This record gives sequence, C-alpha cells and structure tokens, in this order.
Amino acid sequence: MAYQIIDGKKVSAELKDEIAEIVNDRIEKGQKKPHLAAVLVGNDGASETYVNHKVKACAQVGFESTLIRLPEDTSENEILSAVNQLNNDSDIDGFIVQLPLPKHINEQKIIEAIAPEKDVDGFHPINLGKMVVGLPAFISATPFGIVELLKKYNIETQGKNVVVLGRSNIVGTPLSILLSRKSDFGNATVTICHSRTQNIGEITSKADILIAALGRPEFVTANMVKEGAVVIDVGTTRVKSDKTKSGWKLKGDVLFDEVAPKCSYITPVPGGVGPMTIVSLLKNTLIAASGKK
Amino acid sequence: MAYQIIDGKKVSAELKDEIAEIVNDRIEKGQKKPHLAAVLVGNDGASETYVNHKVKACAQVGFESTLIRLPEDTSENEILSAVNQLNNDSDIDGFIVQLPLPKHINEQKIIEAIAPEKDVDGFHPINLGKMVVGLPAFISATPFGIVELLKKYNIETQGKNVVVLGRSNIVGTPLSILLSRKSDFGNATVTICHSRTQNIGEITSKADILIAALGRPEFVTANMVKEGAVVIDVGTTRVKSDKTKSGWKLKGDVLFDEVAPKCSYITPVPGGVGPMTIVSLLKNTLIAASGKK
Repeated sequence: MAYQIIDGKKVSAELKDEIAEIVNDRIEKGQKKPHLAAVLVGNDGASETYVNHKVKACAQVGFESTLIRLPEDTSENEILSAVNQLNNDSDIDGFIVQLPLPKHINEQKIIEAIAPEKDVDGFHPINLGKMVVGLPAFISATPFGIVELLKKYNIETQGKNVVVLGRSNIVGTPLSILLSRKSDFGNATVTICHSRTQNIGEITSKADILIAALGRPEFVTANMVKEGAVVIDVGTTRVKSDKTKSGWKLKGDVLFDEVAPKCSYITPVPGGVGPMTIVSLLKNTLIAASGKK
Repeated sequence: MAYQIIDGKKVSAELKDEIAEIVNDRIEKGQKKPHLAAVLVGNDGASETYVNHKVKACAQVGFESTLIRLPEDTSENEILSAVNQLNNDSDIDGFIVQLPLPKHINEQKIIEAIAPEKDVDGFHPINLGKMVVGLPAFISATPFGIVELLKKYNIETQGKNVVVLGRSNIVGTPLSILLSRKSDFGNATVTICHSRTQNIGEITSKADILIAALGRPEFVTANMVKEGAVVIDVGTTRVKSDKTKSGWKLKGDVLFDEVAPKCSYITPVPGGVGPMTIVSLLKNTLIAASGKK
C-alpha cells in the first residue's frame, strides 16, 4: 500500500509562516511583539540545545525572547523569585522553565509557581485540569503538535479507535484526554496502554490511529499495526550509530521500514512530531499575548 | 455462574464506622471535629435531598456541618462572597457548593473560586490536574467511591482491561485517568467510550472491568459483557413506575437481571455506587481536616 509521510518539518514551517504573519499584523496595528522568556538552570547539554532552538524560533517569527540563565547551584528560592519576577513582568507574555532542573530543586513546586496565564508549556495542574473539563487551557507542546499534524492532514479522529502507548504526564496522558473530549479534533475512542498492559499487540492492532510515546526504540512492529492505520511516532531515543558523523542517531518507537507499508499515514523520526513541539510553544505564546492584546 | 453483589450500602456503612472511629480518636487527642459546609442555592428538590443526606451523614460520623442556604435569585457576586468567607473561615475544613446552580450563575467561576485545599468535591481544575499527574489531590466523590468498592472486594485492576462508558467531567473522565495511573488501584489499560464510539459492544465485550456511567437506563445488555467480568453501574435514572409507592424507580445503565449471571461481581442500583458518594465526601473532608491537624 502507498503510505503518506506526515511531514512535521514542512507543517511546522508553514505554521511558523502563519505565526509570523499574525505578528506582522499585530505590529502594524501598533501592538507589542509577543514576548517569550525561558529560564535555564545549569549547563545540561540537551537543555541548552532545546532552549537555543526556542530562542531561534522566536526570532524567526518576530517574537521577542529573553533567556535567563542561572547557575547549577541556584537555590529553589532564587528560582522561585525569578519565576515571580516573570509572573509580574507585564512585558512577558509567556515563559517556560526548562526541565529537568537540578536535583536539589522541587520541580513541581516551580511549575506550580508559574502564573497559569503565562504557563505556555501547559504543565501547571490548573491548565491540565481545565483541559480535562474541556475549558480553554494551554496544552503542552507535544500533544498540541500532534493534534495540529492530524488537522493539517485532515485525519479524522471522530469515532475512530485511538491507541496511545505511554502514559507520561507531558505526552501520553494529556493526549489521551484531549483526543477523547468532545471537540472537532477529539471524539475518538481512546485506549491508553503502558508497561502493565497485557496483550498490547492485540490492542494496537485494533487502532485506526496509533500513537507511540513510550521511549522504547522500534517497539512497534508490523504485526502490531492494522492495515491502513495512521501511525504517529513520538519516540526520540538517541542510540549509538557508526553511520552518522556525530556517532548518534535518533530512533523512534516504531520500526519504520517494516511498519510504514501497512500505514495510510506515518510520521518519520526525525522530522515528524519533533519539529511541531517548538511551534506549539510559539502558538501558546501567541495565545498568551492575544489575551492581553 | 454465581455472581457476587458488590454491596455499596454495606461498604459505605463500614467506612462510616471507620471514619467515626478516627473522629473519636481526634477528639480524644483534643483535636477539633472535622467541619464540612454546604452551600445550597435555590429550592431544587433533588439538590435539597442530596444536601440533607450529606448533613445527616456528617452527624453520623461525628463531623460538624454547616448548611448555608441562599435564595434562588442570589447574584453571582453574593455566592462568590459566601465562598470567600468559607475559604477564610479556619474552622471550616472543607465545603461544597451544591450543583446545579441557577442559570444566571457561571458555575465554573464559582468552582474555581473555592480554595483548592477545601475543595472536597474535587471539582476545582487544580485538583483534577494534580490527579492527572499523580499528585495528592481531592478526587471527586463517584470515582473515589468506585475505587473504594474495588479495593474492598479485592478486585485487581493492574493489567486489566477496563472500559469506561461515558466521559463526564465528574465521573467517566476522572475515573478513566485514575484507573490508568501508576498506583495500587490503577495500572489498568483503560478505554473510554462515549456517544461517538463505534462498535461499542465489541469494545465492552473485551472488558475485564466494565464501568457504565452514561445515564442511559439498561443500555448494557448481556451480549455486551464478557463472561466473568466485573460490572460497575453508575447510572441512576429516575423512571416512572407503577410498582413503587412514590411512582418512581431508579434505573441503572445495566440490564441487571440479564447481565448479572455473566458477571463475577456486579453493583446493584440502588445500593451499589450510590451510597459510596457521600462517604467519599466524608473521607475527603477528613483528609482536609487532617492536613491542618
């Protein structure tokens, strides 16, 4: 069967163009540029890369951005005070605290200190809770990005069997809620699977849409997938490789070469869900800015 | 097959006894009685009955209770001010605003005005969101009561296929989250079905535990249920009857006589889930009081 690649790189570029246009309109109307701030604590290499990408993406769409760097040994109180300052800074529309934080910091305490209306990562429990009851809320980047991909490719979710593999707080769980809610991009019959699930292959092979967010490289094999299914691969595990210059390769949760021929649509790794997460953050920041005009 | 009735009336009586003992212990230690308040706006008959049951249950377990009655035409601001007063009254451990509220009131606004640490109904988005990420939170009465029933009857949820029928904000959705989380009474593989679900009978007939919370009388028939399943019936629809003195009869979502012989365990209506909801509210109030000692 001929399958179609869901091209997250292309969609995210299109969405960035759309955002850039809206920013231009704002500026022409004399409104301020949306302003995203990021707090980066310590020197974790991956975190540094992510934050740099976010800062760069802001520039691409015409947002202002502020990066607040704090040393590894910053105390919890000092981080709370930085958060508080951002909460009260009317020029900042939204901000994120890049996770993970150093071990001596209570992450949840920091997350809950962020003003919910500036919580563009959508990690504050009040944003999660509002999503649960179908109220307007900031949706975290990966679930939001996946919904955008499904929309862009006109993939119907209503009445479809969706199986989500993985119950993480930032992907699997919110996504399963989002897709089962009464909404244009919801109304699916959602099953959420995890490490304790039995007969997982039997469950996945009933899925019209299968979303793999386990972080287990090449876990999903062809025999687990229904003919004609839509497969969304959220996995990005770095594995050693002698075929790349860096010596590393990103692997998804899906054994792509084997699974793709059975699919109607499938996301590659990299270039599928990954590029969508930053654009989701930008969209949330735009929403935050629009709320204040 | 011989099925076992899950006797919510008996379990709730046992739990009330346990709560009463804890209250006695508190009093012996010189601690205050837990104190639950309820706000009742207007004269809705059903609401009046529910609130009276709650007040009565408080007395049974040795709680103090306060009923605040407000007339039907109370303004939103007046209700908000009553909520605010309860938030700031250190003698009140927890309180509820009985729903539904009159049409001129924005219910969600009232719910979000309740201090989360006194929100013993568990309706505040922050309590829902904390539950989503597995943090301690007040769980709303019906899901909490169902989990208690499963525990009391030693019904294993780990690795089991659970199907929840209905995605309401106060039953189906929170219950589906709760049972799929990593916890002693979770770790199930949960599918949530609703009005848009297709082939619903095919899905329900795979369920080890089937929870019906649709509010559609006798929707679940024998052909939808797996041999040996556990069936929890949350439905309580009042239908006309010429066989009762009141002229009304409560009907569950499950066609009991036909379904029961296929089950290992089943809840009756009435006397199953219903009696558990008030005891859940008492438990939440006890938790709220214990937090302050």
